[in-house]
Amino acid sequence: MIAIDWGTTSFRAYRLDREGNVVDARSSGKGIMATPPGPNVLEDEIGDWLDDGPIVMSGMVGSRQGWVEAPYVPCPAGFSEIASFLKEVRWKNHRAWIVPGVSCRDAAGVPDVMRGEETQILGCGVDGTICLPGTHSKWVEVRGGRIERFSTAMTGEVYAVLKQHSILGRMMEEGAADPDAFAQGVRRSGDDGGLLHHLFGVRTRGLMGELAPAASASYLSGILIGHELRSRATKEVLLLGAAALTTLYAQGAALLGVATRTLDADAAVRCLFRLASSRA
Amino acid sequence: MIAIDWGTTSFRAYRLDREGNVVDARSSGKGIMATPPGPNVLEDEIGDWLDDGPIVMSGMVGSRQGWVEAPYVPCPAGFSEIASFLKEVRWKNHRAWIVPGVSCRDAAGVPDVMRGEETQILGCGVDGTICLPGTHSKWVEVRGGRIERFSTAMTGEVYAVLKQHSILGRMMEEGAADPDAFAQGVRRSGDDGGLLHHLFGVRTRGLMGELAPAASASYLSGILIGHELRSRATKEVLLLGAAALTTLYAQGAALLGVATRTLDADAAVRCLFRLASSRA
Repeated sequence: MIAIDWGTTSFRAYRLDREGNVVDARSSGKGIMATPPGPNVLEDEIGDWLDDGPIVMSGMVGSRQGWVEAPYVPCPAGFSEIASFLKEVRWKNHRAWIVPGVSCRDAAGVPDVMRGEETQILGCGVDGTICLPGTHSKWVEVRGGRIERFSTAMTGEVYAVLKQHSILGRMMEEGAADPDAFAQGVRRSGDDGGLLHHLFGVRTRGLMGELAPAASASYLSGILIGHELRSRATKEVLLLGAAALTTLYAQGAALLGVATRTLDADAAVRCLFRLASSRA
Repeated sequence: MIAIDWGTTSFRAYRLDREGNVVDARSSGKGIMATPPGPNVLEDEIGDWLDDGPIVMSGMVGSRQGWVEAPYVPCPAGFSEIASFLKEVRWKNHRAWIVPGVSCRDAAGVPDVMRGEETQILGCGVDGTICLPGTHSKWVEVRGGRIERFSTAMTGEVYAVLKQHSILGRMMEEGAADPDAFAQGVRRSGDDGGLLHHLFGVRTRGLMGELAPAASASYLSGILIGHELRSRATKEVLLLGAAALTTLYAQGAALLGVATRTLDADAAVRCLFRLASSRA
């Protein structure tokens, strides 16, 4: 079978054997924003695999801007709920299934959504509080193998836009990650005044010569991740994602006395394999 | 005498009579980022006034990127401290004074700075908690006519960069300010989850059809201003600034049970007149 992680900026395909082992993998930059998603991308990228179906695809390929919209499944959502809402697409003699996203509402009734992360989470097969750090970090409560509820923090995107487009970025110089400045930022996030005040300190500490230009991106990152971590009261967090980010979050959590464990970042393929098997 | 408010993006000059009344005013876009600040700008903009000195200038003209740096005066700072640190500049047969900025440190020792706002504040001649909303909002404690301490919130700049450069802006449509969406945002800022989570709700509520594209900028503004207001526990705020912003802040404060009073936004000229008189 073929498992595909088709996101906004990237396309990753895995060819699996009958036991679910990855026997081949390809990736490209043909995310849905780069190239209109549809049969052509599959023909171009993995045309020689297509007779090895079934094909299961997760991520933004199922969004409104994707190939076909696979509407969000409301929480609580586990394997069976998601499997039953797979969206089928057909072309020529091929067919594929798109994994739906998951939605929920917080205590105030405000909606939240994920698309792609549900596949990673269910592939891990663990219960607990799972954090997937990133552009839009997800904090997910999993109980009995089902996603009970979750909430998103825009940490990564706020970091990126402040660095690229605000006055804070103007004083920054490229440099290696600075663990000490990061820790200062995490501690700063617990002070009075709120995030909007703490952010300005990136500028003023630089202005006063108390923060090196090459350290200020790490300080900013610590402030933002510190605020994200503090707004989630929990004793243990399971981290799921790219090592560069999970390492940072583990460092930040340690400063706040929160235990962390890192999950297998490649778990999504296992979930896609199970979903494919359910339709084989 | 001549009073000048010389900022990052604008240049405003006022010609005053012996009693401090404004008899003429000129403004242009020759802020320090647009045109290198120095005698040439004064010659071009108000060359025919220059023999009517003394000239007193406040704002970013005294920053490191300005004409001459007028170092920050530490808090507590009142009229006499600021008057004694005026920085003199001379050219041809003219001379002028640049008003220094003010600095302080918060309880955690992190520095904060203002430049230009001190002139507006001292011109008002009132004690209390003064908020100057804007790109970098200032919250200032004034006691006995002196600036005791202050703190900055990057509210306006965070709003602008999120609107222009983040995924939140992509769903926005231009529209009139929407007081109801603004109020929803202010209320939202009191919910669990923190600012980084509340921001994502601008997207998800839009995605779910629960927030109109033309209302989402007002909702975002309400979330940010709500967070700013909530992180400052106070019973009464004196608002100082452009009417469009002080009106928004007054609406937000009212929702949180905080009383507001609006100060005269043109007070800076009074302070500049007093400073000029001290050197005449």
